[in-house]
Amino acid sequence: MSRYEQLALQLQEQISSGVWQAGDKLPSLRETVRRSGLSLMTVFNAYQLLESQGWVRSRPQSGYFVVPVLQAAHYSLPLQPLQPAETVDINAFIFNVLQAGNNSDCVALGSAFPDPSLFPQHQLSRSLIRVARQLSSANTDVSLPPGCADLRRSIAQRYAAKGMEISPDEIVITSGALEALNLSLQALTQPGDWVVVESPAFYGALQAIERHHLKTVAVATDPQRGMDLDALAQALQQYPIKACWLMSHCQNPLGASMSTAHKQQLLALLTEHGVSLIEDDVYGELYAGLVTPLPVKAWDNTGQVLHCGSFSKTLATGFRIGWVAAGQQAQAIQRLQLMSTLSTSTPMQLALADYLSAHHYDKHLHTLRRTLEQRKHIFYRAIKREFPDVVRVHYAEGSYFLWLELPTDCCATELYWRALKAGITIAPGRMFAAGEQYRHCFRLNVSLPWNTVSEAAIKQLATLIDGQLALV
Amino acid sequence: MSRYEQLALQLQEQISSGVWQAGDKLPSLRETVRRSGLSLMTVFNAYQLLESQGWVRSRPQSGYFVVPVLQAAHYSLPLQPLQPAETVDINAFIFNVLQAGNNSDCVALGSAFPDPSLFPQHQLSRSLIRVARQLSSANTDVSLPPGCADLRRSIAQRYAAKGMEISPDEIVITSGALEALNLSLQALTQPGDWVVVESPAFYGALQAIERHHLKTVAVATDPQRGMDLDALAQALQQYPIKACWLMSHCQNPLGASMSTAHKQQLLALLTEHGVSLIEDDVYGELYAGLVTPLPVKAWDNTGQVLHCGSFSKTLATGFRIGWVAAGQQAQAIQRLQLMSTLSTSTPMQLALADYLSAHHYDKHLHTLRRTLEQRKHIFYRAIKREFPDVVRVHYAEGSYFLWLELPTDCCATELYWRALKAGITIAPGRMFAAGEQYRHCFRLNVSLPWNTVSEAAIKQLATLIDGQLALV
Repeated sequence: MSRYEQLALQLQEQISSGVWQAGDKLPSLRETVRRSGLSLMTVFNAYQLLESQGWVRSRPQSGYFVVPVLQAAHYSLPLQPLQPAETVDINAFIFNVLQAGNNSDCVALGSAFPDPSLFPQHQLSRSLIRVARQLSSANTDVSLPPGCADLRRSIAQRYAAKGMEISPDEIVITSGALEALNLSLQALTQPGDWVVVESPAFYGALQAIERHHLKTVAVATDPQRGMDLDALAQALQQYPIKACWLMSHCQNPLGASMSTAHKQQLLALLTEHGVSLIEDDVYGELYAGLVTPLPVKAWDNTGQVLHCGSFSKTLATGFRIGWVAAGQQAQAIQRLQLMSTLSTSTPMQLALADYLSAHHYDKHLHTLRRTLEQRKHIFYRAIKREFPDVVRVHYAEGSYFLWLELPTDCCATELYWRALKAGITIAPGRMFAAGEQYRHCFRLNVSLPWNTVSEAAIKQLATLIDGQLALV
Repeated sequence: MSRYEQLALQLQEQISSGVWQAGDKLPSLRETVRRSGLSLMTVFNAYQLLESQGWVRSRPQSGYFVVPVLQAAHYSLPLQPLQPAETVDINAFIFNVLQAGNNSDCVALGSAFPDPSLFPQHQLSRSLIRVARQLSSANTDVSLPPGCADLRRSIAQRYAAKGMEISPDEIVITSGALEALNLSLQALTQPGDWVVVESPAFYGALQAIERHHLKTVAVATDPQRGMDLDALAQALQQYPIKACWLMSHCQNPLGASMSTAHKQQLLALLTEHGVSLIEDDVYGELYAGLVTPLPVKAWDNTGQVLHCGSFSKTLATGFRIGWVAAGQQAQAIQRLQLMSTLSTSTPMQLALADYLSAHHYDKHLHTLRRTLEQRKHIFYRAIKREFPDVVRVHYAEGSYFLWLELPTDCCATELYWRALKAGITIAPGRMFAAGEQYRHCFRLNVSLPWNTVSEAAIKQLATLIDGQLALV
């Protein structure tokens, strides 16, 4: 960690612990230089980083002030009972929503992907050209499971950089993390088995479960802390659970990230019941703050955690390259892939391996994280300003989603259809559960640039919400 | 059809109908020029085409002689009873065989793919570079089902050129034909349902069936004519069949291609029982002869045929781009893809669309078909020369596989292991059925160039077979 990052972390901890409270002015740059002995540039960078992450706001000629928003947003959904579902059938609705959003004229606040203009097109293009120039019968050949050795090595190196020992042999390259999730479910279950999911949960997981004829227990998940462990314990006692699926970082749709202690307790609980974890960590590289969080997999000594990752949220949505570090299930998953898609495109795997070998990725991620935090912060402020006060806005660190709650008698699916007519997509809460409990909620993608278009979209949404509230 | 192709077709028909029999000398080039009024070059090209397809052989200074091999190989497997299987479990064995063959030092006579040096690397490379240069946030975006519009249009145009009206909206781009097959099975069946497959069948289909917890009725398939329709009728009467899966052209592993009449009868039979057909046509472009055969799909008026195609056997194994023209099931298949892999790589789809738009594909296929016929013919002759006479060799037109039968008390899996030790792979018959009925058979890939390496491999196999026969 560089000096300015250390300083920013120190100040961030002081804000968290209440040393500096909302509205307080931080010590001036000059004061901090004098006190710390650091250079002016280092101190300036630290303050800028804090601002980009939404902790402070600068006022010209005045200094840096602690922002209240993060604290104000830290409230939780009420505790929910377990939600068992013998059949999961939300696919038709989700299909319609995704197809409707597949229109480039829409303001895509319902999209699951970050603004693609944030991706390093130029460098990816260079890597792909390099691969295309060297196209030969050897490297256009099908790369049977587990996938290209170079790419698996690169991914193992990234684990190693976090202090995790993952062998390239444990890694299987997949067609995005969605295939990794599907293969993991298949390796661990038979039709009719029970699986724990989050409530609310990523619709892709619910669809995969529907596709494999599984049953779910949806366990309450807190927008800040992640899955409720008491409820999980109850689920593990009451149902013959075969696998648990969740997102440990920047949970979709809530944005929740688990603390280290929370992850360790989760793993202990699952281990006690002999239940494997499918850890969907596609947002893991998009954490906020200065310290790279470790996935649950980092504490897994028995190979029961299947850690799924992807480049779709951080590099290029359309390359469709993900992976699973599958522990004990590595060989089973290779066999299942051999039966389903055989492999992902070899040139795309080679292009990614080339890109990763050039070591631009971490620098890109650093910039990407900052930009996403800045954009989210701007959207958050605009939404708080424009939307009626009864709309609750859940702001989580490190996600590019905001999760919003209308009053419970207000229907977000209705809002979805009205917004669509106005050329705006949102992701209605109905997509994120087998039941109706989130029909008053919706997810917004706040990775878009703030400009006249997005500003008009937020204002339009506010008007539509006002209209719906008037009817209730 | 060009003049030389017309002439070749005419001569081919004369050979088929017995005008010219095995060992006969065809009229000389000069005579044919005089009689037909065609140019010497046209006649020469026609004779060369016939030779490349294995109908005739030239002897220096003597002329062209009709080859006996095609006739000699036209014998059939004995009629088999229906083979029902409540569970299909050959996956572990197949996985081991495919992994063992994944070694570039082996002579890959067990491979399922044509020799990759036959693919148009240079032109594919140019298309991929063109796409890589234009990489932008728009075209690296994920291409949700049904896939890139340009590529679907190109595929629809290729159907149109055969006189088939397939809308681009009916086509779903998949991760190779294997994903198309998996999605088709899922759209048509529920776990526990019965599906008709060929006997012997492509192991990928058997694996997909195992993966989806289905039951199979394996219907006897003739190495020349394809699936036995009497046996199929029996299966349709005796079991509650939900779908029929088969290859209409160059069936893997036998090489069988159905006649037009056979295809029409098959479709009528399935229609009568309300059973959908999954027509796996990945070898459809590799037909022999001069006339492009039409798939069963061409006569489908009700949208009950799901026609699966791929570029993996004709252009590039590692691009992993296939499709299904899914008739009534087009939307169901899109939904299932949205739940499993989301989409295939966008740049690869765009690169293929670019390649197809340049209109090199038909020319490439023309050359590819000829080369494959030539190579198969050379292998066939070498095998007939080197292998003991008790080994039956099934030679089918238009496939790059040969299907061989050892005496029934001889085990081809044993031969597989011995060959592997000697650095040669074969595809043992055990891979192609849920039961043991093909344990004395094996499939050879004869798309490899004929050189000292392949010659030595065939001689080595002959020695190994001799050794095994001595033990029986």
